[in-house]
Amino acid sequence: MRLSDRVLHMQESPVRKLVPIAEKQKKNGKKVYHLNIGQPDIETPKAFMEAINAYDTSVIKYSFSQGEPVLIDAIIDYYKRDGMVYEDNDILITNGGSEALTFTTIATCNPGDEILIPEPFYTNYNGFTSAVNVDLVPITTKAEDGFHLPKEEEIVKLITPKTKAILFSNPGNPTGTILTKVEMDMIKRIAIEHDLYIISDEVYRKMAFDGLKSYSMGQLEGIDDRLIIVDSVSKRFSACGARIGAIISKNKKLTSNILKLCQARLCVATLEQIGAAALYKMPSEYANEIKDIYEERRNIVYETLKEIPGVVCEKPQGAFYVVAKLPIESAEEFCVWLLQDFDHHGETVMLAPAQGFYSTKGLGKNEVRIAYVLNSDEMKKAMNILKEALKVYNQ
Amino acid sequence: MRLSDRVLHMQESPVRKLVPIAEKQKKNGKKVYHLNIGQPDIETPKAFMEAINAYDTSVIKYSFSQGEPVLIDAIIDYYKRDGMVYEDNDILITNGGSEALTFTTIATCNPGDEILIPEPFYTNYNGFTSAVNVDLVPITTKAEDGFHLPKEEEIVKLITPKTKAILFSNPGNPTGTILTKVEMDMIKRIAIEHDLYIISDEVYRKMAFDGLKSYSMGQLEGIDDRLIIVDSVSKRFSACGARIGAIISKNKKLTSNILKLCQARLCVATLEQIGAAALYKMPSEYANEIKDIYEERRNIVYETLKEIPGVVCEKPQGAFYVVAKLPIESAEEFCVWLLQDFDHHGETVMLAPAQGFYSTKGLGKNEVRIAYVLNSDEMKKAMNILKEALKVYNQ
Repeated sequence: MRLSDRVLHMQESPVRKLVPIAEKQKKNGKKVYHLNIGQPDIETPKAFMEAINAYDTSVIKYSFSQGEPVLIDAIIDYYKRDGMVYEDNDILITNGGSEALTFTTIATCNPGDEILIPEPFYTNYNGFTSAVNVDLVPITTKAEDGFHLPKEEEIVKLITPKTKAILFSNPGNPTGTILTKVEMDMIKRIAIEHDLYIISDEVYRKMAFDGLKSYSMGQLEGIDDRLIIVDSVSKRFSACGARIGAIISKNKKLTSNILKLCQARLCVATLEQIGAAALYKMPSEYANEIKDIYEERRNIVYETLKEIPGVVCEKPQGAFYVVAKLPIESAEEFCVWLLQDFDHHGETVMLAPAQGFYSTKGLGKNEVRIAYVLNSDEMKKAMNILKEALKVYNQ
Repeated sequence: MRLSDRVLHMQESPVRKLVPIAEKQKKNGKKVYHLNIGQPDIETPKAFMEAINAYDTSVIKYSFSQGEPVLIDAIIDYYKRDGMVYEDNDILITNGGSEALTFTTIATCNPGDEILIPEPFYTNYNGFTSAVNVDLVPITTKAEDGFHLPKEEEIVKLITPKTKAILFSNPGNPTGTILTKVEMDMIKRIAIEHDLYIISDEVYRKMAFDGLKSYSMGQLEGIDDRLIIVDSVSKRFSACGARIGAIISKNKKLTSNILKLCQARLCVATLEQIGAAALYKMPSEYANEIKDIYEERRNIVYETLKEIPGVVCEKPQGAFYVVAKLPIESAEEFCVWLLQDFDHHGETVMLAPAQGFYSTKGLGKNEVRIAYVLNSDEMKKAMNILKEALKVYNQ
């Protein structure tokens, strides 16, 4: 019995090899600062559990396949605050942004079809697409350019008859880059001209620094029929383990067809939807408080990186990541060394080698992604350890 | 922009057309007994919410991609009670049995591959497979035979080079049929001889009546490398809305590859896993109490069906469903009529037309699935309504 080619060819997680090494070192007493995963330390708002505890839990029943009405209403109100008007059947609740991306891929692409995507990109996009036989075609962006998009002609020449969509996260994981209005307009133009869906992963929206605003593609006109927004409570409300996401689109034919996928898997966890509704109802100031916290951490990370000779990175403007080019040969080897062979007063850091975020072979070899998900004191310590480590490593 | 063929070709839910009709009638004051969906009225054990409330919920963090260790351990202990010994990495926690079936299909089949399945079958199997371009090949079973399997040669002649697995639910949804030991051995023989995976959906295990025991395929020897058990807390512990399922297999290459699919979607909802662990730890007597409740309901349904002239159905032995052939032309029309045009003292019943459970065109036209998910008093009333309705309908 063979397994399917599609599962055999699936990429493993870029930090997979590092996890057992980290676990072993932690057991031996070494402290490891985890900057390798987007799991924030920020408390989930209490409203989440309060809503669950106020709910009738005598029978944990199926929810609706589309999602709990209270959650859908909360999302509609949340988007209205930013001038985006959606109707009830424009919104489908999913098992995290993950399922939203899987369903969107299945609904827009047949096996063998292609989706354009700026690289480096969130590595799990590989999984969502290759598991259902769709190919990602990378639009390469560079640390030197702050990971902004190349010129329109560079993108257009990647389009084939098999290209069905352009997918991106904005603010970007792993880059922290925020698309400019000019870039958003270019994406719109390309999508209209070449008849592509636009899949805009906006789970980090509102996390924008330096007074910047992170616009939603939903604020652009003329793309209602082709725009699919992916949203999630994971990052914005520090509720990664709730697994509540959403597909938002005004293309009724698309949503009614994706609803069939929703119906097949019956529903998303009921309690978590009740909790998530309370999160979307949080006052708008909450987003600012969270943004301020991450901005402070971003500053710590960026200030330290600037002090290290040979590091290349532009100041990231959003989300809670930065991809930095380090003065080393192989980030993978460096990350193993950090865990296995290095410590600074008994402490070290765990980073994500960035190679796994590129689909073009050979790119990102000397780059790492740093997730600034720890409090400022810990981030300072962690970044200082990285600085010391690079000194030792390059001696 | 076209949508994908795979999503356009997906079947809609067999009760989809009925839902708006039922909702309208309910608004007009008609009482509708819902025998159309497998949502039991039985209370979820209190242990579920107690475990969640005892858990540290300050940050709702990602769980492990494989699943929460406390839940995996609870499942291992639960299977040990029936003499089935599994190791930690034999178990992967999924978003309900639904995701377990999707992942299993992706991992065992490439696009264009085939899975054998006795029909009538759980209609959502269509969704899990067609969404990822796999074809279900039906092994037709009949109401007259109590929906037991045909002879071995009838099954074997359906096998092609593209056949990768045989899939079934046992006890069966929608039939309530329990496979005999002889049938289980036949499946084993066919799978070994033709090198197929066995995907055994056992979410209704332990719900077996008349002193029968519902064996697990995991209790058979010699198929460790090809057996994949799908489990779930939904039915057995009346926790449908928790969306906690599992893939259980001793084929390490299979589980390590499906783990890649688990990693791509990060994890299953954390709180629900904590609650589900408490469910698997419930004492064994709990299963018997639940079984007794459903057996009483089954008796009510079967006794009434026997009294109706022209109805064909064998006594169902498990789960909480029965498929009955009614003395009518079209079950779909009858189900619409029941909701729209009929009432018995202001009350009616909603049933699932069985046509949607068959993949062979034309089969099941005059059959319905009845889910006995209401308490005995309500089941008596509902079945009496059905009896009266058939009298009126056939006048």
